[in-house]
Amino acid sequence: MARVSSLLSFSLTLLIFFHGYAAQQAQQGQQFPNECQLDQLNALEPSHVLKSEAGRIEVWDHHAPQLRCSGVSFARYIIESKGLYLPSFFNTAKLSFVAKGRGLMGKVIPGCAETFQDSSEFQPRGGEQFEGQGEEGQGQGQGERQRFRDMHQKVEHIRSGDTIATTPGVAQWFYNDGQQPLVIVSVFDLASHQNQLDRNPRPFYLAGNNPQGQVWLQGREQQPQKNIFNGFEPEVIAQALKINLQTAQKLQNQEDNRGNIVRVEGPFGVIRPPWRGQRPQEGDDDDEGRHGRHGNGLEETICSARSTDNLDDPSRTDVYKPQLGYISILNSYDLPILRFIRLSALRGSIRQNAMVLPQWNANANAILYVTDGEAQIQIVNDNGNRVFDGQVSQGQLIAIPQGFSVVKRATSNRFQWVEFKTNANAQINTLAGRTSVLRGLPLEVITNGFQISPEEARRVKFNTLETTLTHSSGPASYERPRVAAA
Amino acid sequence: MARVSSLLSFSLTLLIFFHGYAAQQAQQGQQFPNECQLDQLNALEPSHVLKSEAGRIEVWDHHAPQLRCSGVSFARYIIESKGLYLPSFFNTAKLSFVAKGRGLMGKVIPGCAETFQDSSEFQPRGGEQFEGQGEEGQGQGQGERQRFRDMHQKVEHIRSGDTIATTPGVAQWFYNDGQQPLVIVSVFDLASHQNQLDRNPRPFYLAGNNPQGQVWLQGREQQPQKNIFNGFEPEVIAQALKINLQTAQKLQNQEDNRGNIVRVEGPFGVIRPPWRGQRPQEGDDDDEGRHGRHGNGLEETICSARSTDNLDDPSRTDVYKPQLGYISILNSYDLPILRFIRLSALRGSIRQNAMVLPQWNANANAILYVTDGEAQIQIVNDNGNRVFDGQVSQGQLIAIPQGFSVVKRATSNRFQWVEFKTNANAQINTLAGRTSVLRGLPLEVITNGFQISPEEARRVKFNTLETTLTHSSGPASYERPRVAAA
Amino acid sequence: MARVSSLLSFSLTLLIFFHGYAAQQAQQGQQFPNECQLDQLNALEPSHVLKSEAGRIEVWDHHAPQLRCSGVSFARYIIESKGLYLPSFFNTAKLSFVAKGRGLMGKVIPGCAETFQDSSEFQPRGGEQFEGQGEEGQGQGQGERQRFRDMHQKVEHIRSGDTIATTPGVAQWFYNDGQQPLVIVSVFDLASHQNQLDRNPRPFYLAGNNPQGQVWLQGREQQPQKNIFNGFEPEVIAQALKINLQTAQKLQNQEDNRGNIVRVEGPFGVIRPPWRGQRPQEGDDDDEGRHGRHGNGLEETICSARSTDNLDDPSRTDVYKPQLGYISILNSYDLPILRFIRLSALRGSIRQNAMVLPQWNANANAILYVTDGEAQIQIVNDNGNRVFDGQVSQGQLIAIPQGFSVVKRATSNRFQWVEFKTNANAQINTLAGRTSVLRGLPLEVITNGFQISPEEARRVKFNTLETTLTHSSGPASYERPRVAAA
Repeated sequence: MARVSSLLSFSLTLLIFFHGYAAQQAQQGQQFPNECQLDQLNALEPSHVLKSEAGRIEVWDHHAPQLRCSGVSFARYIIESKGLYLPSFFNTAKLSFVAKGRGLMGKVIPGCAETFQDSSEFQPRGGEQFEGQGEEGQGQGQGERQRFRDMHQKVEHIRSGDTIATTPGVAQWFYNDGQQPLVIVSVFDLASHQNQLDRNPRPFYLAGNNPQGQVWLQGREQQPQKNIFNGFEPEVIAQALKINLQTAQKLQNQEDNRGNIVRVEGPFGVIRPPWRGQRPQEGDDDDEGRHGRHGNGLEETICSARSTDNLDDPSRTDVYKPQLGYISILNSYDLPILRFIRLSALRGSIRQNAMVLPQWNANANAILYVTDGEAQIQIVNDNGNRVFDGQVSQGQLIAIPQGFSVVKRATSNRFQWVEFKTNANAQINTLAGRTSVLRGLPLEVITNGFQISPEEARRVKFNTLETTLTHSSGPASYERPRVAAA
Repeated sequence: MARVSSLLSFSLTLLIFFHGYAAQQAQQGQQFPNECQLDQLNALEPSHVLKSEAGRIEVWDHHAPQLRCSGVSFARYIIESKGLYLPSFFNTAKLSFVAKGRGLMGKVIPGCAETFQDSSEFQPRGGEQFEGQGEEGQGQGQGERQRFRDMHQKVEHIRSGDTIATTPGVAQWFYNDGQQPLVIVSVFDLASHQNQLDRNPRPFYLAGNNPQGQVWLQGREQQPQKNIFNGFEPEVIAQALKINLQTAQKLQNQEDNRGNIVRVEGPFGVIRPPWRGQRPQEGDDDDEGRHGRHGNGLEETICSARSTDNLDDPSRTDVYKPQLGYISILNSYDLPILRFIRLSALRGSIRQNAMVLPQWNANANAILYVTDGEAQIQIVNDNGNRVFDGQVSQGQLIAIPQGFSVVKRATSNRFQWVEFKTNANAQINTLAGRTSVLRGLPLEVITNGFQISPEEARRVKFNTLETTLTHSSGPASYERPRVAAA
Repeated sequence: MARVSSLLSFSLTLLIFFHGYAAQQAQQGQQFPNECQLDQLNALEPSHVLKSEAGRIEVWDHHAPQLRCSGVSFARYIIESKGLYLPSFFNTAKLSFVAKGRGLMGKVIPGCAETFQDSSEFQPRGGEQFEGQGEEGQGQGQGERQRFRDMHQKVEHIRSGDTIATTPGVAQWFYNDGQQPLVIVSVFDLASHQNQLDRNPRPFYLAGNNPQGQVWLQGREQQPQKNIFNGFEPEVIAQALKINLQTAQKLQNQEDNRGNIVRVEGPFGVIRPPWRGQRPQEGDDDDEGRHGRHGNGLEETICSARSTDNLDDPSRTDVYKPQLGYISILNSYDLPILRFIRLSALRGSIRQNAMVLPQWNANANAILYVTDGEAQIQIVNDNGNRVFDGQVSQGQLIAIPQGFSVVKRATSNRFQWVEFKTNANAQINTLAGRTSVLRGLPLEVITNGFQISPEEARRVKFNTLETTLTHSSGPASYERPRVAAA
């Protein structure tokens, strides 16, 4: 009997426990989510790997507290030589960075003209140009059949350092035409109004598939993810595309297990602009597009809007110090489409023992991804606690939430990284240096705030003359300010 | 004892069960809501009917997963002949479509002038114009008393096809001056920043009431919903309006059980512009309004801003094919106020066996409401699964979330619908046709993606020359592209 | 045995209870939060007091239902004479109002120049100007050492009535240079996109600390809140600031228990513009700033953007009636930075027995804070229920959610308040008066809506000729409209 009553008591405890638990849930989790109550950050690596025939997609767990707080998800695409990442689109705005390699990229923007044509003789006067072409064309590259000429939307060369903005719902493909793997990392803005679904990244495949399913989605019974055509009845596809049922069925990729990155056999015969080591000047290659079928000015805006910029181009660097490294920023002043997708990027490259002065993001969360080397990083939260103090190295990611202060010091020969920021014009505030917050404060505020002498305050305020980068291994004691060094 | 320990074990199981359940809640429901994990959609009908003296309001359950994912709620207003929908306002932006009938509509925009006056002789020189008018005027229409002339804000004729934008907090009324019921459907954008309350639609009644209460709100003990005046002390109303207590009490509608749509006896004597089958040209009828009391240009913007357009006007159709049907789009380029309320609309009307080519919304959720006839619809989600495959018919609604692909085929003599979209400039991407994503892709991407021959890829890409509408019952097999047909 | 089975039954009940509870959570709390299902409002007082050496910070509980619904948090800063509120920044946009007293205010905007310099002879030609300054300067005010001249960002005089906009991440300090306490109240917009963290207000301290911890945050184990420097290793600070380790340690304020408002001993020698009882004309004092180091026009926009306006300045009043009181509105037309932070303010001051006519906010939530006196307030929700009917007095706060109607009547000699609104251009709709919704409705809508005679409707519509303010103690019965009184 005693046992029964103790059991009863246990159950009551359980009741209280659950009631408390649920109530706590109700208060914290639901109505006042404390997603950003971050007392510890971690250098994150991918949690899921989706293998394909010619590459793999590595997905970070967007449920990790620091990504959840930042409202983003993150993925890395590794496309082998001759690999083709088949066209897909997302429910979110996306900002991508080419970390390694080179390739081709195409986006299909709705309503824009096919401005890339094989030759100017192409005359779309009905079906004539297809006359006499039968099934024997199968399996052959386009180059072999001179009589047919393809036309499609813009194709761009991409290379390491390119930063690519993509709006939601716009299909995009990549092809690795180099010898090394093409590595692209992408951030997906789940929290922005551009994403009109829930806070999950959802790829929609036009071709290809994902046999492992959307493993990053909780609450969905995992089943292989198929392409869009797979969801329609073949008869509907046949009617819509005016093709026979057999071809319609092929579009469903049902027997296909190659995943979403496939290997291209033979040449990849797409029309492409000449490679000049630089991107083509506006107006060179897409003049045709400016006289498309739209008379409403659409093609002047969306269709020809530049969406790519190279952050490793030495001529566009924002901070450059030969002994220390460089910093390049890409915001909506540089690339107006970023105003629309509300993201921006920063590229950094520093040498051993260089330090990025302590700073915080005033109006953005930042997602830092290491492309090369390693660094020692300290991050401080709103409570004044060090929530990260460690190494981050190539391939790792760490989130730096709005307002959290961070300092980075290279610990390898060269530390290179990219930061994606959840604001089209992310503002950085620095704790030290010529444009720092300390420099902007009156001496009296500093002396009273820190209970230090005016002389100490002057050193605190004026000794560091750099704005962003400095040597991390200077003498342990500095008594005099130095001459400005940029 | 064994039983007791098994009971203990049961309780422990229970503990684990709950812990797991609550943890799952915590992860899925709260912090990562999977509202858009939609594996099945349904054609929805109203869940609540609010009956009134001269009509009824039918409310869709905005907790239905597909509406929840879309962030909207939906209602249908059926106003009988001579019925007056009394002025009310909402906490959300609203986009309405007149599905049937005709009537009058008025909105009261704060701070705008009463630009509709009985005659130009009206001189607001104090109280003189009321002299000699006593209680004997009670119960009589205004037309019977020539000596008094009313003045009020703009009144507009509305008719089938009209699409009406309403900003939050702005009171609106409707009157059915036709012989048939006036049917209006409205979408309420709960997810937009315009709604500063929670994700529930909340009507505020200026007059009338709702004896059944706000049945669509969970968590509120249901009690009759009263008008705003009801909530103030009669003395306060009397003081504010400078009226006697008896009239103040009447404004509270406490003994009134007519609901929010009441029957007007006798003529409905409001000042209205001439009916010309078209809406009046800007500046014809509201010249007075342009010289109102505001010197800050307000009346040039908000007060005279056009908020209505007719989507059944043949002269403004965007896609028109006599054999197939038409599509009209209303976005913020047509109606600038939509930029502010972040909604847009599409009106479609297709004949038997016409098909709207498969497409997806790049940057919006769509709420499709059937005004006439019926159609076969297939919808495909991000996993490539068909989440809807069925008939939708007059009076039904279905949500098409961002990125989900949809194909529609009329199965009755005429299928007519309206789609409300949660973006001021919703972009449509098509899977087939002259402006489709397939057309924009290089042939090599198509051959490699679907493992088909170049010849098949050419057919896939070029056979369908239409952009939006096509015949759904063409021959089962197409081998040659046809001549462009617009 | 019976007991055991009853226990089993109890456990099952428990199971069902929890299942129900959790399911309810899932439906109401999580996915359809009913945060604004407000059936009762309360006049709120601070829930937490953070004491400092020279003042205190009083924090309202942002979990209170009405604040949660409004998406804001609120705090009051009481800074004693000679008290310095040390620089801190927030994750949210902030709008502050100086309720009492006078002082100095500085903000440090990243990248902007130090436009305040001691004298024009200051030449930043390297370190020369520091020559000869040694440790003997310690502990002395700046005024005593003529050879060194400070430079810092803009410092402004503030006084009662000033309304100050602050963007997220921007550090701000206040100093009380008057004899009376300086009282500042601030609203923090948690719901706006400007806040990229969760819905909690998070101060980040540059100097000072908060020994009591962030008591308003749930789910964080309370520990003293330290400044940002405290989170970095002293070696890192020393390297970044080029200072010795000892000074770096002092910046961490570890032994400091003064809190975030400290007492300044001796004169507070910051460079300040002359006090003219008005704020300086643009361009007088910050000409230097217009030729700063930025060539991109930044300093013309952010750096010199006006962020303060005085709402008690009689010359800028929007409604002024000597017998009744005045109302001043500050929106983004007056202060463009408000467009960016999406907040606006209203200042009101009415005499005994004056009434603010009943009104609602069309597109904003309002947070009303009483600076002086007391008033009788009635608030009506969407259900037509009076959710507040009581006194509010000096120092209390009440939220008025979007669409809720409110009437205010002064019950003390003078009632003065400030309303913060969650929209850069909050629109007010009035229920009574010359620009009211009733005035804009046709008589027929009023007669039919309220079942009153045309004569009564005319009185309802035309009797009150004021727009905003009226006498609350007029005769109990009004039969005739009066002559317009503004």
